[in-house]
Amino acid sequence: MFESANLDHRVGKSAYRREEPKLREALLDAQYDVQRNGGFAVLILVAGVQGAGRGAAVNLLNEWMDPRHVRTRAFGAPTQDERERPALWRYWLALPPRGTVGVFFGAWHEAPIMRRVRGESSDDGFAHEIAQISRLEQMLGDEGVLLLKYWFHVSKKEQKKRLKKEGEKLEAPYGKFVSVGEAFLRRTSTREAPWTVIPGSDARYRDLAFGRHLLASIRERLARKPAPARIPRPARALQPPDALNVIRALELDQAMSRAEYRDELDKWQARLAALSRRRKFGKLAVVGVFEGNDAAGKGGAIRRLTSALDARRYDTISIAAPSEEERAQPYLWRFWRRLPRLGRFAFFDRSWYGRVLVERVEGFAASADWMRAYTEINDFEQALSRHGIVLVKYWLAISPQEQLRRFRAREKVSFKRFKITPEDWRNRKKWRAYEEAVCDMVERTSTSIAPWTLVEANNKHYARIKVLRTVCKAIEAQL
Amino acid sequence: MFESANLDHRVGKSAYRREEPKLREALLDAQYDVQRNGGFAVLILVAGVQGAGRGAAVNLLNEWMDPRHVRTRAFGAPTQDERERPALWRYWLALPPRGTVGVFFGAWHEAPIMRRVRGESSDDGFAHEIAQISRLEQMLGDEGVLLLKYWFHVSKKEQKKRLKKEGEKLEAPYGKFVSVGEAFLRRTSTREAPWTVIPGSDARYRDLAFGRHLLASIRERLARKPAPARIPRPARALQPPDALNVIRALELDQAMSRAEYRDELDKWQARLAALSRRRKFGKLAVVGVFEGNDAAGKGGAIRRLTSALDARRYDTISIAAPSEEERAQPYLWRFWRRLPRLGRFAFFDRSWYGRVLVERVEGFAASADWMRAYTEINDFEQALSRHGIVLVKYWLAISPQEQLRRFRAREKVSFKRFKITPEDWRNRKKWRAYEEAVCDMVERTSTSIAPWTLVEANNKHYARIKVLRTVCKAIEAQL
Repeated sequence: MFESANLDHRVGKSAYRREEPKLREALLDAQYDVQRNGGFAVLILVAGVQGAGRGAAVNLLNEWMDPRHVRTRAFGAPTQDERERPALWRYWLALPPRGTVGVFFGAWHEAPIMRRVRGESSDDGFAHEIAQISRLEQMLGDEGVLLLKYWFHVSKKEQKKRLKKEGEKLEAPYGKFVSVGEAFLRRTSTREAPWTVIPGSDARYRDLAFGRHLLASIRERLARKPAPARIPRPARALQPPDALNVIRALELDQAMSRAEYRDELDKWQARLAALSRRRKFGKLAVVGVFEGNDAAGKGGAIRRLTSALDARRYDTISIAAPSEEERAQPYLWRFWRRLPRLGRFAFFDRSWYGRVLVERVEGFAASADWMRAYTEINDFEQALSRHGIVLVKYWLAISPQEQLRRFRAREKVSFKRFKITPEDWRNRKKWRAYEEAVCDMVERTSTSIAPWTLVEANNKHYARIKVLRTVCKAIEAQL
Repeated sequence: MFESANLDHRVGKSAYRREEPKLREALLDAQYDVQRNGGFAVLILVAGVQGAGRGAAVNLLNEWMDPRHVRTRAFGAPTQDERERPALWRYWLALPPRGTVGVFFGAWHEAPIMRRVRGESSDDGFAHEIAQISRLEQMLGDEGVLLLKYWFHVSKKEQKKRLKKEGEKLEAPYGKFVSVGEAFLRRTSTREAPWTVIPGSDARYRDLAFGRHLLASIRERLARKPAPARIPRPARALQPPDALNVIRALELDQAMSRAEYRDELDKWQARLAALSRRRKFGKLAVVGVFEGNDAAGKGGAIRRLTSALDARRYDTISIAAPSEEERAQPYLWRFWRRLPRLGRFAFFDRSWYGRVLVERVEGFAASADWMRAYTEINDFEQALSRHGIVLVKYWLAISPQEQLRRFRAREKVSFKRFKITPEDWRNRKKWRAYEEAVCDMVERTSTSIAPWTLVEANNKHYARIKVLRTVCKAIEAQL
């Protein structure tokens, strides 16, 4: 893979002087076209061997392009903030929005390679990390990010010369680093996002090769016509030959007396409070996902949790339509940025499942997009789970009759009127479509690491206690 | 993931009798349309828990569809033949050709799941196997295979009842198997090929659900318009700012006297013969890939290897245009089927690299197809290498002048005339395009597990000795 980089490439001064201003102008033009297009972000990963000019290349980009629209981010050792989030968190937060160019220096490739070089990961462990990276990169591509991966390379001899000149210390033995790097490049070069090796021994050659490739890649993408949705799958994964499904199988009316509710509420809230104060709780975090029919009591259930907790320990996050900033990012971005640090709770009142619920039913997302969302969500939740985040997911189910009763009651009580909108009435008409979407969602995303709990919610008291109890049990299982 | 399968689904006899004949006819029609279309194969993977009706479903397919165009293959413990090939070999050989339907019962998912259930693989090892499967399945999708993956499922209680009734022995503890299965399904459900869980407790429900989904999926694919090539990448990975490349860097004229050649030939042929008789050689195999300019001496180099070997120990495989049978399969199929068993040699006179050489230059393959071929080839060679196959790959390079001399000489010698065709003269005109393709090929597929050896071949003697010597060294490194 590094054959060309080991040759003695050269570009003369005068040839460089002829081409450089043209290339620079063309890159600037391309950058403005990316901005005007607004449909995709460009993300440039800069990697490679020490002394091959990675830093110089990043500086060059900032010099050649309009720095107002280039976001350069160099990742070093993770900060305290970053260590308390899943490993990918810091990369997610730094993603460039559509219409801009992002440069990552030392991104998600860095740690797996260095761990392998230092012998801290096995061959299988390395493969595991590579698989996760591949899925992340595929998701980015699907979300419209133009991912360009560059590996800057020089020979061992050249590296030695460079480091001596700069007075730099060697970070990893050349042979080992290159051999791990080669395996990494080979296994993360995908159809959509192959690596490109840039020979780094001659600065002028390096800059022109890098700049030209970047320009050609951006131009190619700008010229691409929007592809028709490529994987139109049957809208319903499995057409059920009978009328039974997980929602209809629920016995929505559950009894619970007011007295019993009081007792249970006290008991489970005390238990939750105690759990949250356990010292070991500082090594995990809780993410609660609340979905359900309109007026099913999501907010009320969340409040029964939060009232048991220290206000400094939790966030309640209400998810509405995405903001402009959020729409310029991959779908999951706005959820990544709200992840709790260790020792904390985050309750999502509606969540990333909007993609496969409202966006599916209302046609806001193409079927290919919400179909792949199941996989992306499972990957996302696996990343959370691996980091020690306890995931609890609730679908609060009420009957159409009960919903009607609650809607009417809300209309009568003036301070509850804001809770009922024309949209709620419209949604009722799509009851069956939502039911189908919920069944598919449960079928495809209820997993051992992040199971769905279906809550029979015609009786609010019963529902709240079931939520409280399962949250406590999930935390206890982890502690 | 198995929520719906754990419900008590039922379809009544009369409802089944009404629908079954229609579904059956529609499936048969769909099958004929697949055959008429001829553009893709359907591959149905049947998996799931024991006692959920996997076997019955496979039988049903053979009953419902035209068995002349359904190829059903049940994979059990590997045979001796299969054990001597890489693990994926038997699946490759059994792939259905375009226009037909293949059913795999216990395919590549089986062994990884069972190993994990039995605790024979670590979490990372399991992830490693999953990553390989994902890449295989993606490749199949890219090659136009419609991959449909079904997991038949019943509850623990139902399984127990079934096994008792059939007098079958439980192969794996239910809980463990289902938990590993769930993780597997979650992590191998991709955008292109998600798993579909079929509830198996009621035979009529199972058959209708399965049949309907199959029908809808095949119909959806038949209706799909051929998508435009989706990933048009710049044709040359990196435009080199100077004229230097790995081919031009070669010193093609190397000296070797006839006497020296004789000595070296004797020495290395004896060494190769001895190596091939080593007992430990039985644990590995050698695959030699010979590519090069026309008339560069590929055949002659191969003969200098084979004349040192027992004729029962090697195959020489000349690759020309693919046959009709081969064209109906994914690109790499015809190479998989020619893989040597352990203890043997296979020399490919031209090879899978045709995809990124002649097919690229002549425009037989779309750029998106040959671009992804680099990744597919690296995966293929990694599978070979993991199985203990020593890969040696040669590019025999001669100068245009030397080629011209050889062409003219061949035209003069009557028994060599067959070796020179109008195509050879045409290819000469594309010298630069081939050179570019060769450089990209070396850059993207020369890896530590399967490095390219560039052979300066203006002097045939020198070239043959270099090939012999590097083959011996590669085997010795492995032994």
